[in-house]
Amino acid sequence: MRNIQVSELDRRAVEDQEVEIVERKGIGHPDSICDGIAEAVSRGLSQLYLDRVGHVLHYNTDETQLVAGRAAPAYGGGEVLDPIYVLIVGRATKQYELDDGTELTLPVERVALESARAYLRENLPELDVGSDLILDVDLGEGSGDLQDVFGEDAVEVPMANDTSFGVGHAPLTETERIVLEAERQLNGAYGADHPEIGQDVKIMGKREGDLIDITVAAAMVDSYVADIDEYREATERVEAFVTDLAREYTDREVHVDVNTADDLEEGSIYLTTTGTSAEQGDDGSVGRGNRANGLITPNRPMSMEATSGKNPVNHIGKIYNLLSTDIAEAVTEEVDGIRDLQVRLLSQIGRPIDRPHVADAQVVTEEGVAVADIEAEATEIVDERLANVTDVTRRVIEGELSTF
Amino acid sequence: MRNIQVSELDRRAVEDQEVEIVERKGIGHPDSICDGIAEAVSRGLSQLYLDRVGHVLHYNTDETQLVAGRAAPAYGGGEVLDPIYVLIVGRATKQYELDDGTELTLPVERVALESARAYLRENLPELDVGSDLILDVDLGEGSGDLQDVFGEDAVEVPMANDTSFGVGHAPLTETERIVLEAERQLNGAYGADHPEIGQDVKIMGKREGDLIDITVAAAMVDSYVADIDEYREATERVEAFVTDLAREYTDREVHVDVNTADDLEEGSIYLTTTGTSAEQGDDGSVGRGNRANGLITPNRPMSMEATSGKNPVNHIGKIYNLLSTDIAEAVTEEVDGIRDLQVRLLSQIGRPIDRPHVADAQVVTEEGVAVADIEAEATEIVDERLANVTDVTRRVIEGELSTF
Amino acid sequence: MRNIQVSELDRRAVEDQEVEIVERKGIGHPDSICDGIAEAVSRGLSQLYLDRVGHVLHYNTDETQLVAGRAAPAYGGGEVLDPIYVLIVGRATKQYELDDGTELTLPVERVALESARAYLRENLPELDVGSDLILDVDLGEGSGDLQDVFGEDAVEVPMANDTSFGVGHAPLTETERIVLEAERQLNGAYGADHPEIGQDVKIMGKREGDLIDITVAAAMVDSYVADIDEYREATERVEAFVTDLAREYTDREVHVDVNTADDLEEGSIYLTTTGTSAEQGDDGSVGRGNRANGLITPNRPMSMEATSGKNPVNHIGKIYNLLSTDIAEAVTEEVDGIRDLQVRLLSQIGRPIDRPHVADAQVVTEEGVAVADIEAEATEIVDERLANVTDVTRRVIEGELSTF
Amino acid sequence: MRNIQVSELDRRAVEDQEVEIVERKGIGHPDSICDGIAEAVSRGLSQLYLDRVGHVLHYNTDETQLVAGRAAPAYGGGEVLDPIYVLIVGRATKQYELDDGTELTLPVERVALESARAYLRENLPELDVGSDLILDVDLGEGSGDLQDVFGEDAVEVPMANDTSFGVGHAPLTETERIVLEAERQLNGAYGADHPEIGQDVKIMGKREGDLIDITVAAAMVDSYVADIDEYREATERVEAFVTDLAREYTDREVHVDVNTADDLEEGSIYLTTTGTSAEQGDDGSVGRGNRANGLITPNRPMSMEATSGKNPVNHIGKIYNLLSTDIAEAVTEEVDGIRDLQVRLLSQIGRPIDRPHVADAQVVTEEGVAVADIEAEATEIVDERLANVTDVTRRVIEGELSTF
Repeated sequence: MRNIQVSELDRRAVEDQEVEIVERKGIGHPDSICDGIAEAVSRGLSQLYLDRVGHVLHYNTDETQLVAGRAAPAYGGGEVLDPIYVLIVGRATKQYELDDGTELTLPVERVALESARAYLRENLPELDVGSDLILDVDLGEGSGDLQDVFGEDAVEVPMANDTSFGVGHAPLTETERIVLEAERQLNGAYGADHPEIGQDVKIMGKREGDLIDITVAAAMVDSYVADIDEYREATERVEAFVTDLAREYTDREVHVDVNTADDLEEGSIYLTTTGTSAEQGDDGSVGRGNRANGLITPNRPMSMEATSGKNPVNHIGKIYNLLSTDIAEAVTEEVDGIRDLQVRLLSQIGRPIDRPHVADAQVVTEEGVAVADIEAEATEIVDERLANVTDVTRRVIEGELSTF
Repeated sequence: MRNIQVSELDRRAVEDQEVEIVERKGIGHPDSICDGIAEAVSRGLSQLYLDRVGHVLHYNTDETQLVAGRAAPAYGGGEVLDPIYVLIVGRATKQYELDDGTELTLPVERVALESARAYLRENLPELDVGSDLILDVDLGEGSGDLQDVFGEDAVEVPMANDTSFGVGHAPLTETERIVLEAERQLNGAYGADHPEIGQDVKIMGKREGDLIDITVAAAMVDSYVADIDEYREATERVEAFVTDLAREYTDREVHVDVNTADDLEEGSIYLTTTGTSAEQGDDGSVGRGNRANGLITPNRPMSMEATSGKNPVNHIGKIYNLLSTDIAEAVTEEVDGIRDLQVRLLSQIGRPIDRPHVADAQVVTEEGVAVADIEAEATEIVDERLANVTDVTRRVIEGELSTF
Repeated sequence: MRNIQVSELDRRAVEDQEVEIVERKGIGHPDSICDGIAEAVSRGLSQLYLDRVGHVLHYNTDETQLVAGRAAPAYGGGEVLDPIYVLIVGRATKQYELDDGTELTLPVERVALESARAYLRENLPELDVGSDLILDVDLGEGSGDLQDVFGEDAVEVPMANDTSFGVGHAPLTETERIVLEAERQLNGAYGADHPEIGQDVKIMGKREGDLIDITVAAAMVDSYVADIDEYREATERVEAFVTDLAREYTDREVHVDVNTADDLEEGSIYLTTTGTSAEQGDDGSVGRGNRANGLITPNRPMSMEATSGKNPVNHIGKIYNLLSTDIAEAVTEEVDGIRDLQVRLLSQIGRPIDRPHVADAQVVTEEGVAVADIEAEATEIVDERLANVTDVTRRVIEGELSTF
Repeated sequence: MRNIQVSELDRRAVEDQEVEIVERKGIGHPDSICDGIAEAVSRGLSQLYLDRVGHVLHYNTDETQLVAGRAAPAYGGGEVLDPIYVLIVGRATKQYELDDGTELTLPVERVALESARAYLRENLPELDVGSDLILDVDLGEGSGDLQDVFGEDAVEVPMANDTSFGVGHAPLTETERIVLEAERQLNGAYGADHPEIGQDVKIMGKREGDLIDITVAAAMVDSYVADIDEYREATERVEAFVTDLAREYTDREVHVDVNTADDLEEGSIYLTTTGTSAEQGDDGSVGRGNRANGLITPNRPMSMEATSGKNPVNHIGKIYNLLSTDIAEAVTEEVDGIRDLQVRLLSQIGRPIDRPHVADAQVVTEEGVAVADIEAEATEIVDERLANVTDVTRRVIEGELSTF
């Protein structure tokens, strides 16, 4: 029997609070680049271990550091002067003895580089990896506690590697949905049609009462922008697009600003050669940006844990942050009457990860609904998801779950 | 007139919540080592600029990355095998033209190294910097917007460099005080008398109702530990010390565990040569550990901002996180009837930092006290502290304010 | 009037000495990889400066360092485990003010990386640059004496930057020609037809009297070698090829050995994944291998100067080593009766480079020929070549002259 | 029976040649700093292996790379702006199994750092290692052929690891002695009394007939030089000192120049903060400067082999270069009638190093002396020295033999 508690959350739903702040750093932000590389390396190593050993071995690669470069953007196409430098840091198992006594040596550093290069090529198409960005790697051995815990032959549930906790929320507020969706679409369908918008899009949402301010900082790519007029048109297009998008999620008043720090008179604008501010002065590292649900939400409890790059088999901080979000979404989707739900999972070192010390679902119900009305249904969903905890591991390795 | 709001916090005081989690990473934890170096470098650069230019120039050095080493600890004294590698990353102004036209070149990289070495020597006495740890530095120029904003001749208040926010709390709960004080004393008076305890002390506090569990992970220093018996005695001493210390702060039931992952039978213990787990497999970076008040408190709103290493003159995230904590402490100290106070400061880019977009003090009053009873007094204190915002800058530079 | 001296060389021709030793490190040898990168970067920077400024600015990039990787070669195709690391080091002018006052910032680090990558892709086709090899760069500013001395508008001859000397020889001895040609063809037409031979070919020639021993160490590429038999066949093919080739250059007795350190019984063979021993334990750096004429010839005076990577406009060591070789070849080609010729050029700092302190041609004449017989003709050729010294610069930039 | 040949050298003695060029880079020259570090690391590792294993294990650390810094020297004391960066590169055995089955892990990287720091502190006293210079290390494992060949229990002579050769000369010419001694004394007794002279002293000797030009480039240390007058006096003192010193070695005409590139009018002088040009723009690496006898002598055959940092037990290039010099000195000291002697030792891979393929002593006898007169005596000395070849190893480890 799992220790699952459903109780009332002792505050208003975030949607009903007076002031709300939400932020998302887009995939081209220096911190997100590091998150993305760390997670790509993690997936690459998991796959390497599965292919060669049959289960995932011990590793953590959650420490990528980015040192900004120097660039000279210019209308019609500028150039990088000094390359960005990225150091992939972490621990990984390099030697492993198979059951038949074969001693394997695993190409963890080469695979880390290959994974990171593939990720960068796909997600930062304007960046010439190798010339605009130097990719370096330093993966040491860990403390030697090789845990071979996952794969075809891993029938048992892994044990928690730490006393840690994860927290998830659902549903997203209107402001949260706008911030999250705006970045995803700007870096998705919109970006595909408008190559002038770089991947370094940072979106800040601030709601005071019924007024939502959305501030977009979008790096423009110089080779697609011929002059100041095209630049102005590009920012206006983004403003119109995000304003329309926001309309789908709220009836509140919405105000959108794009690149507010620009001074068009002075020619001081947000123009880049590669689509990211990492090209000029903005450093980055893992775990400093978006939380596991893709947002920074100071109105809600957050875990400080860096999710990206962690081993998805037994790193409990990673698993429980992803799982608690997953549970919160499942419960609010399947159970009626919930206005705000917060799920916390607290591990205990050495316990099976499907049996947290406590799984705690705190809820703000809609008017006329009591916690007791939903307790049984919610408990069942939490229980079922915990039973299938290793699904999270699998989905992370297959790239189905985003960690930032 | 400043926009100061005092309102009721729509939740129970953290002290009254059912479950509370608190954590502190001690100064020898790999993440804290990075925070400490970043902040030491920041102080060194501020002082350099004040000495040579008369005011602080633009810089941010909040990206130190630590790559763990490899060590072979042994009773009576082991050794480091492969050194720890630390890369100091950031931006700093290297050229400056004085009013008289003199062009100064500033030794920012050398000063960064000197500051970091001095910090490490003082705070990690068992570590031979240069042989056990390699200190590297890569400080680029920033985006060129040299802001000369602080010093004798800086009569005006700086403008916010970003739209950001800071959050602070007071008073600390019992659990928070125990966690914070335990680490400080273990790394203070206790450590001075007991050199066998390393600086890498991590303390986790968990309260469920009236039961407080304190889990201490303390790296022991091998040269002061002759055998397994001395090791056991050392951990027992820590357990007794923290148990006594907790008594000063609470009447609740307290249970203390030290180095719970040890397996004394197997000889698997937490022994180090240098007093930090960075010597063997634990990487670290800035902004991943303690928040500006020295704690990780998932029960409370936290800023994701890395405070350590940021420029204390105009980096609004740093200033507002420190100031909001300072304000919360001042208000609860001077005003009666407050059970829990949360102060949020929200900046607006381009506005003077003494005039936040909103300063928002949310309070849980003690029984019988209304928010209205304390509003005027609280407002006055907030106003006065905001008026003296540059005090925070000065205290940071002089090392009076801790950032992690 | 140039100071040109023609005199008798006070020793036997190298061809007539009792013992002769000659060595050539092929283009895939770790030292040669560094030479090749350094020179490719040099050409890239020269071209950059010519394109943007109209003449070559100050730089020297003659310090590339290679740190070997780790690999697991295997019949049919192995893999790199830890990448090779290459650090391009040097000085280059990054800022330049054009005559019209425009301040240029030059992308020297990005161009260095691009040049090096292009070179590696072309010359080490089995190596996946970026995954098998990390390319890093650190180009500082020089001592500030920006000399803008070459280009369309540079009518004057540059001044020598140092007191230095160059030395060249002709004709090559039989042993020298065999060693040089063998490597060139193995890495040329032979290699094109036989992809199993890697680029790391090292050839040692030793002549005692009329017996020439040629020892070839050739890295084989595992993906083209299915088993020990194919390996043996591959080495035998190389042995036969080099034996035949030697026949074209000598009537002396020649004995060729390939991969003599192999122990086929033990399976200890020279198999690689990438075609270079840099993949497994062999470090390299610039200026440690072949001299400017492509050979290491302890029987002849050699300059210690690293030619590769040096600025070809005013770096006198580079220019005079290339030019003295060029002169020696021209004289022996055009003047009859020379058995051995050694040309030395000695610069004086601050003098025009077409007017060396002394140009000294020492000759061993063929029987019946006196130095006086050839003096006038030789002097004229030396004089003419010195007058056209900047041709060397142009040919280096255009890649016509090899430096190692 | 060893294959020892004594024959006539088919050229004039260098002392009798018309033009002679000699160079020595002082211990503070960037290339020599690298040589010195490489050799200090080598001695440190040899000692580590002797202490823990009883004999020297496989290593080579002959690839140190120095990247110059940036400095702002000033009369009375300037400062380093950006630190020098030094990367120690090489291979070393990290794991070793003792006869009793104990598995040792050896702290090779930490010992490398300690050895290099101690060397720098002793030889570059004005340099603050750690702040003015960053010391980094990357020692990989070699190709796995751990050869445990030296020590108490090593009764047998090691086998040559390569087909290589060494060459030595004696006696030194007058010019060579002046160049060598001048640097040694300037960095010795003279330097002790005159701290204003830095360690980066480069001496070039050029003899044409009976005129010897000695050009000294000596970095002055700013903190000991108050103004341009003191600077001029300092250079004049050096000039006088070297002129006097030269008198002890020659009756030829000697002309000494110090810091000829200076332009005192323009204030363009050779002033440094740390005593080495590595502080400002001059990179360095191992094996690019002095040969094993401390000199660069284009008039004589030289080996390209980098001696510094190589394993002194079985690296035949190192041993034979040192030994051939040693033999040449012994023979000329003990045997009368020799005007110039050149000793070459040629190894064969796999043969005991006391039995070279050929040991070849070529001699220019004094007038009236025939080769036959000295052959027996010379052969005996060569034979005896070869028999005691391992003495070279011991003397290198104990720091008695200089390698550059």
